[in-house]
Amino acid sequence: MRKIHVIGIGAGDPDQLTLQAVRALRSTDVFFILDKGEVKADLTGLRRDMLEAHLTDGTYRVVEARDPERDRSAGGAAYSPAVGDWRSARAGIYERLIAEELGEEETGAFLVWGDPSLYDSTLGILQEVLERGAVAFEYDVVPGISSVSALVARHRTGLNRVARPVQITTGRRLAEGFPEDVDDVVVMLDAHQTFRQYAQEDVDIYWGAYIGTPDEILVSGPIAEAAPRIERLRAEARERKGWIMDTYLLRRRPRD
Amino acid sequence: MRKIHVIGIGAGDPDQLTLQAVRALRSTDVFFILDKGEVKADLTGLRRDMLEAHLTDGTYRVVEARDPERDRSAGGAAYSPAVGDWRSARAGIYERLIAEELGEEETGAFLVWGDPSLYDSTLGILQEVLERGAVAFEYDVVPGISSVSALVARHRTGLNRVARPVQITTGRRLAEGFPEDVDDVVVMLDAHQTFRQYAQEDVDIYWGAYIGTPDEILVSGPIAEAAPRIERLRAEARERKGWIMDTYLLRRRPRD
Ligand SMILES: C[S@@+](CC[C@H](N)C(=O)[O-])C[C@H]1O[C@@H](n2cnc3c(N)ncnc32)[C@H](O)[C@@H]1O
Ligand SMILES: C[S@@+](CC[C@H](N)C(=O)[O-])C[C@H]1O[C@@H](n2cnc3c(N)ncnc32)[C@H](O)[C@@H]1O
Repeated sequence: MRKIHVIGIGAGDPDQLTLQAVRALRSTDVFFILDKGEVKADLTGLRRDMLEAHLTDGTYRVVEARDPERDRSAGGAAYSPAVGDWRSARAGIYERLIAEELGEEETGAFLVWGDPSLYDSTLGILQEVLERGAVAFEYDVVPGISSVSALVARHRTGLNRVARPVQITTGRRLAEGFPEDVDDVVVMLDAHQTFRQYAQEDVDIYWGAYIGTPDEILVSGPIAEAAPRIERLRAEARERKGWIMDTYLLRRRPRD
Repeated sequence: MRKIHVIGIGAGDPDQLTLQAVRALRSTDVFFILDKGEVKADLTGLRRDMLEAHLTDGTYRVVEARDPERDRSAGGAAYSPAVGDWRSARAGIYERLIAEELGEEETGAFLVWGDPSLYDSTLGILQEVLERGAVAFEYDVVPGISSVSALVARHRTGLNRVARPVQITTGRRLAEGFPEDVDDVVVMLDAHQTFRQYAQEDVDIYWGAYIGTPDEILVSGPIAEAAPRIERLRAEARERKGWIMDTYLLRRRPRD
């Protein structure tokens, strides 16, 4: 029976691999690296560096494939229907990769950015491949340090305040309004700096870009003061590198 | 200047330490292990085992201290005011530990269960110790795999669904109602199996106890079917071990 590991590799710092992840890397014959078609060559490079750091040359194979382009015209955030089509297209690719590139008794692995449980489609796609029934395999999931954990660790703050909830959401959702009944909100996948919408409110922001990498930028403070600084730094960094990954925590003073 | 690492050690599986955490352990002279006074001797034991696995005997010191008892008469969940007093009492203890047990040029560490950013008071207490001004130190935070990441990895599911938010909350909050505008909710610190309140609704539950340890128990499924099973397994396990740690994800069918 084919085996597959879905391995969370952390969100940028190669030292944020877990021992369990290193063990899983070492038990893998074939690594599937999917190029997202965007300017993410740096991220593909980081995955290759990790393999070289932890494995002996010649003991594993790497198969790179092109992920179908997602319709990003809506602005970069995830749209359910478009994501649905995109996911099916990807299921076809994953199915072919597993059937053609992985021997019956071999172990394959997908290296997932951050934690596989947060805004990542790998688990959904593998489930879909299994449901199609054309290829059979077992799989397990190795959790990773998410960009959310990495963000708050760098800011040395908690995600939640004592006995209070925290919500993790997307830029698109935040644009519809600050979530109800929760004052600590982490925002991912925000191409539009939606935090600016709350610049007049009593909110602190903890922002980070390229967290865990040599390009890391961190800004925190009352949002009215921090927002213009973030806008400027973000634009400069994006210009310089050609792409940006950023995440932030908004902490609203409780209204009770 | 004294240095302190706040190190997330994962939520039960010693292999879920990160390479960064191992490096931080190795650069530490003095480990502070705070016994919560409850029946958590097993957890203190796990911390000691980790040190023995990764460090050379005689190269570090371990200082154990007793945490002041928290008023748990309210049933085990966290109450803000009581937590406030308790935090001040703990700040006094931490201050004394750092001042008396850590040399001026030494590095100390607090080993925090799971990820230091989730329902843990260590960062808040260290901040309070610094504000008191009696002892100075630098500190950093090493993120860890939380019980939340470990839970969903074991169930091989995501935290959020595509483009949707997820909320992390407590049993006490869930008792007040299912959070608004969010259909994926992770519940921690629940001494009362509050999920039973939703047993008649269209909700799936992904439950885990002692996740990552040899005692791990996992149950998932439609809540109406899973809830009685969880109740029984939970009662048996709690009886057998004398304590229980459990977490769960509730996934409600979206109402749109
Ligand atoms: C498709 S999601 C994947 C998240 C990933 N699974 C995780 O656990 O972090 C991509 C989003 O994660 C965030 N992100 C990932 N890595 C990051 C990093 N190193 N610094 C800042 N944000 C990051 C950004 O919000 C980005 O839009
Ligand atoms: C005080 S909080 C600390 C959480 C921790 N910082 C983390 O990141 O997981 C304790 C709660 O975490 C959850 N928990 C921690 N470890 C767990 C485990 N191994 N299995 C199940 N639940 C766990 C339980 O809900 C418990 O009530």
